Amino acid sequence: MSTIPFDIAATDGAARTGALVFPRGEVRTPAFMPVGTAATVKAMYASQVRETGADVVLGNVYHLMLRPGAERVAELGGLHRFMGWPHPILTDSGGFQVMSLASLRKLDKDGVTFRSHVDGSTHRLTPERSVEIQRLLGSDVTMQLDECVRLPAERAEVERAMRLSIDWAERCKVAFGTPEGRALFGIVQGGDQADLRRASARGLVDIGFDGYAVGGLAVGEPQDVMLAMLEETIPELPAGRPRYLMGVGSPDDLLKSIARGVDMFDCVMPTRAGRHGQVFTRFGRLNLKNARHADDPRPIDEESACPAARDYSRAYLHHLVKTGEILGMMLLTWVNLDYYQRLMEGARAAIRAGTFEAYAAETTAGWAQGG
Amino acid sequence: MSTIPFDIAATDGAARTGALVFPRGEVRTPAFMPVGTAATVKAMYASQVRETGADVVLGNVYHLMLRPGAERVAELGGLHRFMGWPHPILTDSGGFQVMSLASLRKLDKDGVTFRSHVDGSTHRLTPERSVEIQRLLGSDVTMQLDECVRLPAERAEVERAMRLSIDWAERCKVAFGTPEGRALFGIVQGGDQADLRRASARGLVDIGFDGYAVGGLAVGEPQDVMLAMLEETIPELPAGRPRYLMGVGSPDDLLKSIARGVDMFDCVMPTRAGRHGQVFTRFGRLNLKNARHADDPRPIDEESACPAARDYSRAYLHHLVKTGEILGMMLLTWVNLDYYQRLMEGARAAIRAGTFEAYAAETTAGWAQGG
Repeated sequence: MSTIPFDIAATDGAARTGALVFPRGEVRTPAFMPVGTAATVKAMYASQVRETGADVVLGNVYHLMLRPGAERVAELGGLHRFMGWPHPILTDSGGFQVMSLASLRKLDKDGVTFRSHVDGSTHRLTPERSVEIQRLLGSDVTMQLDECVRLPAERAEVERAMRLSIDWAERCKVAFGTPEGRALFGIVQGGDQADLRRASARGLVDIGFDGYAVGGLAVGEPQDVMLAMLEETIPELPAGRPRYLMGVGSPDDLLKSIARGVDMFDCVMPTRAGRHGQVFTRFGRLNLKNARHADDPRPIDEESACPAARDYSRAYLHHLVKTGEILGMMLLTWVNLDYYQRLMEGARAAIRAGTFEAYAAETTAGWAQGG
Repeated sequence: MSTIPFDIAATDGAARTGALVFPRGEVRTPAFMPVGTAATVKAMYASQVRETGADVVLGNVYHLMLRPGAERVAELGGLHRFMGWPHPILTDSGGFQVMSLASLRKLDKDGVTFRSHVDGSTHRLTPERSVEIQRLLGSDVTMQLDECVRLPAERAEVERAMRLSIDWAERCKVAFGTPEGRALFGIVQGGDQADLRRASARGLVDIGFDGYAVGGLAVGEPQDVMLAMLEETIPELPAGRPRYLMGVGSPDDLLKSIARGVDMFDCVMPTRAGRHGQVFTRFGRLNLKNARHADDPRPIDEESACPAARDYSRAYLHHLVKTGEILGMMLLTWVNLDYYQRLMEGARAAIRAGTFEAYAAETTAGWAQGG
């Protein structure tokens, strides 16, 4: 298979920093990928997402196959052109949202049939169709179709889904072929069972992928279980290939996962929180709905280079949130995406300097200060 | 009273072009003022509103007195600073929204008591309180408190409201005093009764204002009635002072009113339409919800300098509107505010060139083309 170069520039303990090199541009790691569910990072212009320092965004196959449809996006020149984001795009496989959003799912060994949550229409995803959709979208990183089990779950159920996901991984690899300049990632499953996680990782490595995702975490289990599963999984993965922790997470989750060797993340947390009045800052989280901000002339963070964090009073942001104004969602989403990118930027610099542990400790202490 | 300079650079028939000169900057006329109801032009960054060419925005006393409160805005440094708009701001008096939004209104000769549509709390507006609120907000143009009657209405009712509005105009002028660099506008009422319109205008001119608004139009009457009322009113107003047609209107309303000597406009139409999938273009209106746009790779207007009109396919905008994405509202609002400013820019240039009639005819013919 065509392999996307992954240059690891420095390591610091288990943490690494480097870059994945795509024809559309480099993805500096550790990387946080803003989620652009339906071909838009909600409430943000694509140019702003770029200006925060994002190298890659994520698109959701489930949403895009329903609206506007993968064939339509292909006809219009692909997802990059459609959404005005000429930089790398990672697409998920659709599996996770089929499990969490669709109604009347019916899973078989060959794939999954489901009804759209939008209009009730019936659709089918197989490993081959998921890969085809991602090809039609033109994604730079294709994710294998997998089955993600919500935790807690019976061991037998976790194991069945993990085995099925390996079968599907193999079928995705065949379907993917060896397209130039595009990557295919496998997804480790196995729930909260250490031996199943290891078996899943080994099974995927035997097949061979451009990168390895860890899926099925941050789906209801405590953080220590998530970190324990990472510790079981990562040693089984090849050091020279990127590791992507799917759907994670809070700034604290990110630092702790980077310390364990994770290179890539995506999460709706910064964008969703921003639409609900919450911001992430160097001083911890703030809820702008809170009445204590109503008369506060201070910005979110006067030292930030992000206009949304620097140029508007908390009183104004509180007002926008309380009145449900769209501008409030725009500004707070921007604050959060900028903060996540600054956090990653700091992590990359600290790993290069060999000071990641101190960076994580200082950053964590900052959050405890309160804004 | 302190008089804000109004330099009329050229006239063309009844149409005029010039500039109102405030300490915070010039307002080029004919001017369209985007509506920033609750201290935000909905779905737009203030910097973008400026970049479309807007010289002034409107703020609503009714909304701002309820949330966040005029005293709070004053404490935070005034409305300009609060919303990050350092250019001129015109505030309405609150009267119109009290009539249209508040519940349990009780009008007396001294003012109006009403319940907030937000939380049911009781508030009172008098001419003096309205002027005080606008002073606390720091507005560059203060509007008198008036009573606006919805049409059709009985003549007696229209006349009563018109007489009351003149009484209130006088009280507003006393309350306003002679603050340096700030303007007070009176508001002509009189419904669809030509003689009442003329009487209202004469009554206001006797009192003397920095500018004269025409209120109580575009409240249910046909366009020809609105234009007829303008034709009755404008000859009664001093040529050297600006004329502001409140709450109007469509691009066609604007051109026809400019031809009759109107200098300033505000309307929620471009912003509200943008949030509901509608755009105004050189080729007429488009409804992006319409399925015919689903596969259309063309932008709204490839010759536009506005990124929102030029850089996104109609297919993408259709997708955003259909999925209810915030970015759709952001982009379509931007398209509309830009188009309204281009329309005003063209009108100003045409009046200077003495070709306004041809400009209006060509523009109107363009709308009939269809997109």
